[in-house]
Amino acid sequence: MDINLVEAAAFIGGVIYGNKNIIINNLAKIEEARPGDLTFLYMTSYEKYFSTTKASAILVEPGFKKSREDITYIEVKEPNKAFSRLLIKYFTPQFTLNGVDPSASVHPTAVIGNNTAIGKNVVISAGCKIGDNVKIFHNTVLLEEAEVGDDSLIFPNVSIREKCKIGKRAVIHSGVVIGSDGFGFFTDEKGVYHKIPQIGNVILEDDVELGSNVTIDRAAIGTTLIKRGVKIDNLVQIAHNVVVGEDTVISSQSGVSGSTKIGDHCILAGQVGLVGHINIADNVIITAQSGISKSITKSGQYFGSPAKEFKTALKLEAHIRNFPAYVDRIKKLEAEVNTLQDKLNNLSNGK
Amino acid sequence: MDINLVEAAAFIGGVIYGNKNIIINNLAKIEEARPGDLTFLYMTSYEKYFSTTKASAILVEPGFKKSREDITYIEVKEPNKAFSRLLIKYFTPQFTLNGVDPSASVHPTAVIGNNTAIGKNVVISAGCKIGDNVKIFHNTVLLEEAEVGDDSLIFPNVSIREKCKIGKRAVIHSGVVIGSDGFGFFTDEKGVYHKIPQIGNVILEDDVELGSNVTIDRAAIGTTLIKRGVKIDNLVQIAHNVVVGEDTVISSQSGVSGSTKIGDHCILAGQVGLVGHINIADNVIITAQSGISKSITKSGQYFGSPAKEFKTALKLEAHIRNFPAYVDRIKKLEAEVNTLQDKLNNLSNGK
Amino acid sequence: MDINLVEAAAFIGGVIYGNKNIIINNLAKIEEARPGDLTFLYMTSYEKYFSTTKASAILVEPGFKKSREDITYIEVKEPNKAFSRLLIKYFTPQFTLNGVDPSASVHPTAVIGNNTAIGKNVVISAGCKIGDNVKIFHNTVLLEEAEVGDDSLIFPNVSIREKCKIGKRAVIHSGVVIGSDGFGFFTDEKGVYHKIPQIGNVILEDDVELGSNVTIDRAAIGTTLIKRGVKIDNLVQIAHNVVVGEDTVISSQSGVSGSTKIGDHCILAGQVGLVGHINIADNVIITAQSGISKSITKSGQYFGSPAKEFKTALKLEAHIRNFPAYVDRIKKLEAEVNTLQDKLNNLSNGK
Repeated sequence: MDINLVEAAAFIGGVIYGNKNIIINNLAKIEEARPGDLTFLYMTSYEKYFSTTKASAILVEPGFKKSREDITYIEVKEPNKAFSRLLIKYFTPQFTLNGVDPSASVHPTAVIGNNTAIGKNVVISAGCKIGDNVKIFHNTVLLEEAEVGDDSLIFPNVSIREKCKIGKRAVIHSGVVIGSDGFGFFTDEKGVYHKIPQIGNVILEDDVELGSNVTIDRAAIGTTLIKRGVKIDNLVQIAHNVVVGEDTVISSQSGVSGSTKIGDHCILAGQVGLVGHINIADNVIITAQSGISKSITKSGQYFGSPAKEFKTALKLEAHIRNFPAYVDRIKKLEAEVNTLQDKLNNLSNGK
Repeated sequence: MDINLVEAAAFIGGVIYGNKNIIINNLAKIEEARPGDLTFLYMTSYEKYFSTTKASAILVEPGFKKSREDITYIEVKEPNKAFSRLLIKYFTPQFTLNGVDPSASVHPTAVIGNNTAIGKNVVISAGCKIGDNVKIFHNTVLLEEAEVGDDSLIFPNVSIREKCKIGKRAVIHSGVVIGSDGFGFFTDEKGVYHKIPQIGNVILEDDVELGSNVTIDRAAIGTTLIKRGVKIDNLVQIAHNVVVGEDTVISSQSGVSGSTKIGDHCILAGQVGLVGHINIADNVIITAQSGISKSITKSGQYFGSPAKEFKTALKLEAHIRNFPAYVDRIKKLEAEVNTLQDKLNNLSNGK
Repeated sequence: MDINLVEAAAFIGGVIYGNKNIIINNLAKIEEARPGDLTFLYMTSYEKYFSTTKASAILVEPGFKKSREDITYIEVKEPNKAFSRLLIKYFTPQFTLNGVDPSASVHPTAVIGNNTAIGKNVVISAGCKIGDNVKIFHNTVLLEEAEVGDDSLIFPNVSIREKCKIGKRAVIHSGVVIGSDGFGFFTDEKGVYHKIPQIGNVILEDDVELGSNVTIDRAAIGTTLIKRGVKIDNLVQIAHNVVVGEDTVISSQSGVSGSTKIGDHCILAGQVGLVGHINIADNVIITAQSGISKSITKSGQYFGSPAKEFKTALKLEAHIRNFPAYVDRIKKLEAEVNTLQDKLNNLSNGK
């Protein structure tokens, strides 16, 4: 794709320094860029690549020292975001899926919107409602009365169980399972587990993205609710009756246990675990591998397993790292106290 | 569904207080219940909802203070279990899959039981044996000589590899992989890994449930064995040659490494990891995110990474949390010893 | 399968002691072997089974004490590797998939090599290139321009996204997702996340194995690269722009965050987490459940969360385990110092 540099700079509100009349074919990372590419610089750790990058043009912060003359600069605030905006404008992937494939099975009672594409071997069961401009890729299955909102994109081999509802502009990656039974059993007097029917559903509000092989269980009763704008990374587990607040992000391999409620604008880093039946306030950040066993009522950053408020956790971590030094200090104290005791005894004995 | 309250109370052995002649349409959680619903109360943390619940009837413990007159009470021991029994009786989902879909591929040498339903695009390979009253949902694949016992339920997009055997009344959720190769390699002198053929299989005894995207590897030689009544939550990993004992429960995202044997009636909470080649006794509870690197020979509760016996671990955790206080005490001791040393020196010097 | 013992011994360079003229039908573990089986002994913890094993022949280290006369010995260095070589020679599974199934959808522009088998309901999209002697099992999907090298084996229900490339002799287990979008968003002033197009791909070099339900995200820009000989276990997550070096092994449920580069010949044990944008040197071993938040520049063994060099971590772990004893020593010191202070005061006061 040929990109007019002047047009691109105007789109992001940037100012060009250098040769305006170059044509850009591609966007690339600074260390991999080739002639014809536009790149960007935003982390100081990447500045080492500036002197050697082969990019033809580069997005930089206003005031960047323009030490090279063979490259065109575009000054713009937050070059990384500007770069993302150009990616969205010029490189948003266009998937070629069109129409309803003859090998797809669409139940006569299912409603399919306009301009919606259904791939090969897809199963759309009775009572399903699929909106407009949806793409459902090959070998994906929707059981009875599942719903998908307009402009959603569902990749191959996804499983959506009965009565689950997906909002508009969803992106559901391959291998996702939405609406599997919650993990609910009761034990009898012999310790044998009996399955409790899981008769609720899952609702994804608008603008939700689910990474590959994510699992979201249906509610025991009621709804497992993923609110507007939530982004969930690969291999995350969401148990029954969980609520995830708006614009919350959950990174890969984290797990949220049953009935826990997470607030808006939270960030869970990777491999975090939350026990069930707790509440997490809005604007909480939980760092990687933390384990949360109690409700968090105050926004802020937390880590550890069990998790502590960030500064407390850092301090504890430092103490633990210095444990050998503390042990040495205890030993030194013991020796000194011994010496003191001896001296004092001698003194008392008049020696 | 209309439920006769008198019949429902009789079924669970409960005693009705208040208006017996109401019709119940639904079971609901206390905080979400509406007129016509039956709910239950069993955790004190939910009592706050009692004064405002709109439920028409409620299961309560015998002796519960009946402060409202506009609701019908059913006194019953363990209201939560009674509620689950009503859910099972009246709301066990009836899946509508019937017959063998023409798009399914059933090998001529496969044996399919009576009243068994095979969904769209399902592949049943040569030599498979499927029992009676089984439902295998769309796009699931069984390779050669796989077996499934009576009354089992297999959801869409499941992969069951050759020679693996699933018992009766199994529930296998979407995305499960049973019988993938164990992770077995040997290295040559150059550090290159060579695959060791994994020629064993997986056996699931009766009444096993596997959550979505669970992976269970086939044995290198012999059998990876999941015994009767085991319940496994989403995204759990079971490696080759593992044995999981009867009525053991494994929560989401836990992993069990190769050749480890877990006893009966154990509970692994979420994100637990067990190294390979160890044994876990019966009746062991391992709390969330724990890492188990040695055999556990005694029933009881364990946590931590590496895991300790529960009380020991709690005590250690408390010590660690109080680490700053201990550091302060060491500093105070150092100051005091210094002072003592000075005083004693002065005294010795006759000052 | 009947195996001639003399031929088998010659193949592994072993020396037979005892009856050479027996026929072996099977290879088995020492504790499960039956008459007609060949087994092996290599860990001392398994020697307890030697006196009772029913195996007809056994691989042992040179010099092993041959206390039984009813069993044939084959002396060989590294009996476990020799056993694996026999497994490979005599028991490598032969999958029966042949030809292109009529239910498979192969786009006219796709190129399929010689002797390649495509299973039922497989989707091979436009521009795909599949090498020779490849087997792609049922219900697997390849989107546009995906490529698979010669002699690769792809199990059922795998999803391979557009433009991703798989090398020769790959083994891709069920449920794997290759090339899902990286987890990349930018936030606007309201804290709403906007998707950054992920326009790169994934490349698997030759001899890579991916366990079931592994997820590997495509690069934001450029390539997520899994180098020659890498073996990845079930449920592992590899984020966008990660590079995994040659002959590196990653165990189950580990996760590698975006843009991190792992060297050659590394071993990540189970449930390990690596943050993004760090570098791991060659020959690094990271033990189970460790969390790595900084680059590792020196080969060696590391553990903990946050991870430390192995010996340091072991020492810290010992200190932590002994924390109650240190607390007791602090208390004892406090009492002694108190006593000293009293005594000294008395002495100063002339008592």
